[in-house]
Amino acid sequence: MPSPASAFAAENHARFLDELKALLRIPSISTLPEHAGDCRKTAETLAAELKRIGMEHVRLIETNVGREGHPLVYADWLHAAGKPGAPADRSSAAGWKPTVLMYGHYDVQPADPLDEWKTPPFEPTERNGNLYARGAVDDKGQMYMHVKALEALLKADGKLPVNVRVLLEGEEEVGGEGIAAYVASKPADLKADFALISDTELFAPGLPTLCVGLRGMIYTELEVRGAKTDLHSGMYGGAAPNPFVALAQIIAGLKDREGKILIPGFYDDVEAPSAEELAAWKSLPFDEEHYRETEVGSKALVGEAGYSVLERTWARPTLDVHGIPGGFIGAGAKTVIPAKATAKVSMRLAPKMTPAKAFAQYKSYVEQIAPAGVEVSVRLIHQGDACLIPVDNPYIQAATKALREVWGRETVFIRSGGSIPIVGDFDRHLGLPSVMMGFGLPDDNLHAPNEKFNLENFRLGIQSIIGFLEEAGR
Amino acid sequence: MPSPASAFAAENHARFLDELKALLRIPSISTLPEHAGDCRKTAETLAAELKRIGMEHVRLIETNVGREGHPLVYADWLHAAGKPGAPADRSSAAGWKPTVLMYGHYDVQPADPLDEWKTPPFEPTERNGNLYARGAVDDKGQMYMHVKALEALLKADGKLPVNVRVLLEGEEEVGGEGIAAYVASKPADLKADFALISDTELFAPGLPTLCVGLRGMIYTELEVRGAKTDLHSGMYGGAAPNPFVALAQIIAGLKDREGKILIPGFYDDVEAPSAEELAAWKSLPFDEEHYRETEVGSKALVGEAGYSVLERTWARPTLDVHGIPGGFIGAGAKTVIPAKATAKVSMRLAPKMTPAKAFAQYKSYVEQIAPAGVEVSVRLIHQGDACLIPVDNPYIQAATKALREVWGRETVFIRSGGSIPIVGDFDRHLGLPSVMMGFGLPDDNLHAPNEKFNLENFRLGIQSIIGFLEEAGR
Repeated sequence: MPSPASAFAAENHARFLDELKALLRIPSISTLPEHAGDCRKTAETLAAELKRIGMEHVRLIETNVGREGHPLVYADWLHAAGKPGAPADRSSAAGWKPTVLMYGHYDVQPADPLDEWKTPPFEPTERNGNLYARGAVDDKGQMYMHVKALEALLKADGKLPVNVRVLLEGEEEVGGEGIAAYVASKPADLKADFALISDTELFAPGLPTLCVGLRGMIYTELEVRGAKTDLHSGMYGGAAPNPFVALAQIIAGLKDREGKILIPGFYDDVEAPSAEELAAWKSLPFDEEHYRETEVGSKALVGEAGYSVLERTWARPTLDVHGIPGGFIGAGAKTVIPAKATAKVSMRLAPKMTPAKAFAQYKSYVEQIAPAGVEVSVRLIHQGDACLIPVDNPYIQAATKALREVWGRETVFIRSGGSIPIVGDFDRHLGLPSVMMGFGLPDDNLHAPNEKFNLENFRLGIQSIIGFLEEAGR
Repeated sequence: MPSPASAFAAENHARFLDELKALLRIPSISTLPEHAGDCRKTAETLAAELKRIGMEHVRLIETNVGREGHPLVYADWLHAAGKPGAPADRSSAAGWKPTVLMYGHYDVQPADPLDEWKTPPFEPTERNGNLYARGAVDDKGQMYMHVKALEALLKADGKLPVNVRVLLEGEEEVGGEGIAAYVASKPADLKADFALISDTELFAPGLPTLCVGLRGMIYTELEVRGAKTDLHSGMYGGAAPNPFVALAQIIAGLKDREGKILIPGFYDDVEAPSAEELAAWKSLPFDEEHYRETEVGSKALVGEAGYSVLERTWARPTLDVHGIPGGFIGAGAKTVIPAKATAKVSMRLAPKMTPAKAFAQYKSYVEQIAPAGVEVSVRLIHQGDACLIPVDNPYIQAATKALREVWGRETVFIRSGGSIPIVGDFDRHLGLPSVMMGFGLPDDNLHAPNEKFNLENFRLGIQSIIGFLEEAGR
């Protein structure tokens, strides 16, 4: 028999969905300064909603790390009982309830290339059982499941089964410096027993999944300068250095044609998954050819020889180039040797690798392999730590129990190739293990045109979070 | 004693300069569709001026090669005597006068990057004895010297010393397909004995120069496609092909770090300059270190070992990359593996190389070295033949004589690393040798911010052209 909160969520689902759509219409693109107002508007909308459903101490927290930041949203409800810090023997502490820090982010990636969207990115549209919009799954839709689970519990029960703190950020897609600084300051407001984050995905449709590992990352800008000014390629071709050719030579020197990164020492700290974890990955429902065809759609997959796709994307470092601004990019032809070229280059890091060391190795190698005639400089735009979550804590156990009840299947433990730097920050500064319970799907087009969120997953996700909080409070 | 025409030009010079400034204010950027109206306005302005000074049969000729083109401007004055086709023995044909085809182009390159201009590109500004504007020297200023030389002769003498046809184009900076098709049709209107083109430069300030060789070129777009859509670089990094990395690997494979092009067979048809020509180049006032410091401004020059800078830029093929559109080029960070990447790649060709063969070799090699996982395609945007002008014809002799009188020095014969495809077309289709008498300077910033034309060269250029036409008519 469903709990009262579960029934409340079921009855109010249509309204929940309408509210999410309204949130998705605000283009809260954190990296574009012209959308700063939209980010703030989203934060204010969420704060008002948290207040409306009965959360307390609702407020915006300003983050100003080197520039005008987008605010954090904070709220709490701390009347379940007890205080953070689990008693040594839980069974002996009758009435003690844990405190959960529920995290999500309300900012989204830019929507370009706009002409590849079937419906406009900021006009949420239902199609084939999915909701299409920028931010549908990453992370507005998933973050909003938390808010709606809290509403259902508060409205149906008049209280929450555990103590809850909510912390939402608006700079996740631009590196999250603001929240990192706030968490590092260890404020009393963040004292909790564990964190709950829904910014990951199910391994396959209908398969409940907890993510227990993330790659770290460094995102850099590599600038190459040649002549003092743009030059005519007819007059100077053959004598003047070409920064785009030099950049190509440097990039080609960073990674071999198999995908192995050539930066000296880069793999020194890479920790291989345990034999047990590798065996579990092998039993996951995953077919590399199907993945190539349906998710990637390229004529072949690439990557380091001797590693499976899951190992390559979850447990090995990688290097990607995202764009090469500068030079002539208009239609037609311009016969210019540009004075400079820039590449946006990022690296994903395996557990135990550190951003600082990886960046130093990269910078030093780029300077070493730069061809004659050009000057290079390398700038770190942002970074995040890799992490591995232990699976033997009571919160992971409560999560698997709740997921089993909602989905009718055993939970699989996976990792993600992406980076959620806040997970490392919660661990390092606050001592919190994170439960990464996300309900995206592998084909949700995160960071790409036609991002979507499966509507059924949005519904079951809310039920799962209600069940998890109820289970964690037992 | 100056000729009447020469005196007229001197007296009216301030007005000539004002007229040129008015012409430079029209942003006739041929590659940008939004400036098509400006191109037409420039053509109409020139046609009106040619009519005003007394030229005949003035008209616009529409060129529609695969898209709406910018018109040619035609005018003539054919009352000097004789008909095109030099008699076998000129001295025996009393009163015979040659016919010159005077060519120039009124279109200009785009002006970006705009923020590097000291004064706006389309507000011509005098500074330090120069006129700064996009098109000041390439080629509006040089083309307008022709118009003003014709005005001086017609107004001072009531006639021209030779038969003259004027042909101006508005698509030189985008490949000149329109004029190429028109010339290839061998119209009666273009019958002449030689062509005069002012789109080149003096080898050094005050040193009269004729250009007798040009490199050919092919300008291409190289597209690399990986996944079917943009992908999240965290989720897919390590398995999905990255088109920017693949493009870097291909570009790095096209040219070694010394500047040697690695395309098989690319150098097969390269014709080395004669020992005599090489010796003449060695005696030119040229210092590689001074050139590096003042013109290029890079920390070192690059290019094939074993060749001087003049050989590398005048007589050797080269390969340059002008820009790499696509991907994320905004501020900040976007963690995307773009579905595709494009590079604008051009090659300059030495005499005897042909664009068709070079493009076929390039295309085949690119397909061969493309890394696994991506698909490549190569598109030819435009092309031009290389050329070498014989220096023993009477028009080159008349030119050197006129230049000696205006500049007081002997003319040097140089080549240019740039491409003026029309020179090859005039030779191939009309049998015309070209006299390339240009008055730019090496530091004029062609195709770059802060393009300029030396004001004294504008004045002496008009005098030189008057003298040359008078000499050719003797």
